[in-house]
Amino acid sequence: MPSATAPIAVFDSGVGGLTVVSALRRALPSENIVYLGDTARVPYGGKTRVTIERYSEEIVRMLVDDGAKMVVVACNTASALALGRLRQVFPVPIEGVIAPGVEAALAATRTGHVVVMGTKATIGSRAYDEALRAARPDIRVTGIACPLLVPLIEEGMLEDEVTDAVLRRYLAGLRASDADTLVLGCTHYPLLAPAIARAAGPGITLVDSAANCARVVGGHLEDSGLRNGGPSGGLHVCFTDPPDRFLGVAGGVLGLETGSVEVKKVPPLGQ
Amino acid sequence: MPSATAPIAVFDSGVGGLTVVSALRRALPSENIVYLGDTARVPYGGKTRVTIERYSEEIVRMLVDDGAKMVVVACNTASALALGRLRQVFPVPIEGVIAPGVEAALAATRTGHVVVMGTKATIGSRAYDEALRAARPDIRVTGIACPLLVPLIEEGMLEDEVTDAVLRRYLAGLRASDADTLVLGCTHYPLLAPAIARAAGPGITLVDSAANCARVVGGHLEDSGLRNGGPSGGLHVCFTDPPDRFLGVAGGVLGLETGSVEVKKVPPLGQ
Repeated sequence: MPSATAPIAVFDSGVGGLTVVSALRRALPSENIVYLGDTARVPYGGKTRVTIERYSEEIVRMLVDDGAKMVVVACNTASALALGRLRQVFPVPIEGVIAPGVEAALAATRTGHVVVMGTKATIGSRAYDEALRAARPDIRVTGIACPLLVPLIEEGMLEDEVTDAVLRRYLAGLRASDADTLVLGCTHYPLLAPAIARAAGPGITLVDSAANCARVVGGHLEDSGLRNGGPSGGLHVCFTDPPDRFLGVAGGVLGLETGSVEVKKVPPLGQ
Repeated sequence: MPSATAPIAVFDSGVGGLTVVSALRRALPSENIVYLGDTARVPYGGKTRVTIERYSEEIVRMLVDDGAKMVVVACNTASALALGRLRQVFPVPIEGVIAPGVEAALAATRTGHVVVMGTKATIGSRAYDEALRAARPDIRVTGIACPLLVPLIEEGMLEDEVTDAVLRRYLAGLRASDADTLVLGCTHYPLLAPAIARAAGPGITLVDSAANCARVVGGHLEDSGLRNGGPSGGLHVCFTDPPDRFLGVAGGVLGLETGSVEVKKVPPLGQ
């Protein structure tokens, strides 16, 4: 049984999950957090379920073996395709970012038409559609796969006419519809929120999972007696491939102090 | 000792290396070819040397164990960062795409100023600079990292105003210079050759490694008595993650009949 001082482990395919870390730091400042970005195999968003499940299981195995009291899958693609498998395999609480995003979208929409932007794998999984309809069967959901956004964000092209042109194309259908809520269904996308808001046009509420996810995580810890009450917690950041300058871009936008970064090797699952 | 009927193994991080397969099929129609695209870990171009070396060694180990008589590293990033390591480790002939591209560039340039487009890892390695200068010390080389091109190509955006805008930005410096030769230093880029030619402007010779690489491979086989003289050879295509529709885009552009595709798992190196 892990102790309250054990870390919350936050996992993403790359650096996008730092948007969730940022929300966790604000909501739960006493918690110790370990972040693991699987940059040696990033991106997950164009890969298939079998590969995404395997990678996620390898990563969470390592995080649990290292003593995490809880795991946050801060990657929409891994949440959409691997969360069920992870919860079957591991005994610690595991929270993803889909359910918190769905809750936020349901609270926001008035027309009952929600648009979800995400990777090919996330949109193809229909995880948001199913979760939204399970909560409210009359809801209408439109998924838009946006495979160019992660590369544009990782290039730091957050305010750029090329990015604006790509967004206008992805969101042309949204502007012509009665949708009023746009889910940022990838943890990279909050870094692009101003440009997305411009392309979406007026009257559209942007929703991301981060704040809601942090609230859900806090509730889990409270319920299980694992909430850390000590002084301000630490953040330890790890990647599977040494990070490039984008870590600095993300850290700067998010106001995160990432300190020294550890490079870890992921043990493969037994054959 | 492998026999002449053993396959040539061609390896890339994804599907870009099929441009090299296409040239090999034309130049050496009797040869059997096995293609392996490491799509479970694509792209390599933003990753670091240690990771690219490990992935390349794992793949080539599998190809050699499966009986390849020769390995073609049809990926500029792996050629730039891992070819030395691969040649140390494995006893079969291993050819990359940098040296053939360098030879083609040297034959093409009159001004002595060559521009190389490639991934971040390829350009950062300075492999083209060093090989060009080793052959001709007075040559001037400008490297341009083009990290958005692979995602745009994999989206099939071969003729698209967004792609044109990105290319104009990458090649603005080229147009203002006396460079006359542009090396397509990534096996994806030949699929984008018409758009690249437009953005580069008149008087620029585009060079890719594929045809030269096929010639070099033919010479190796001839010299070592491993050239297959039989009837027309077969092509067997494998990926580490099931392929998406981009395989069809690439196959169509290249006129390749890829047949049924095998999904293979790469055994990790011993710890």
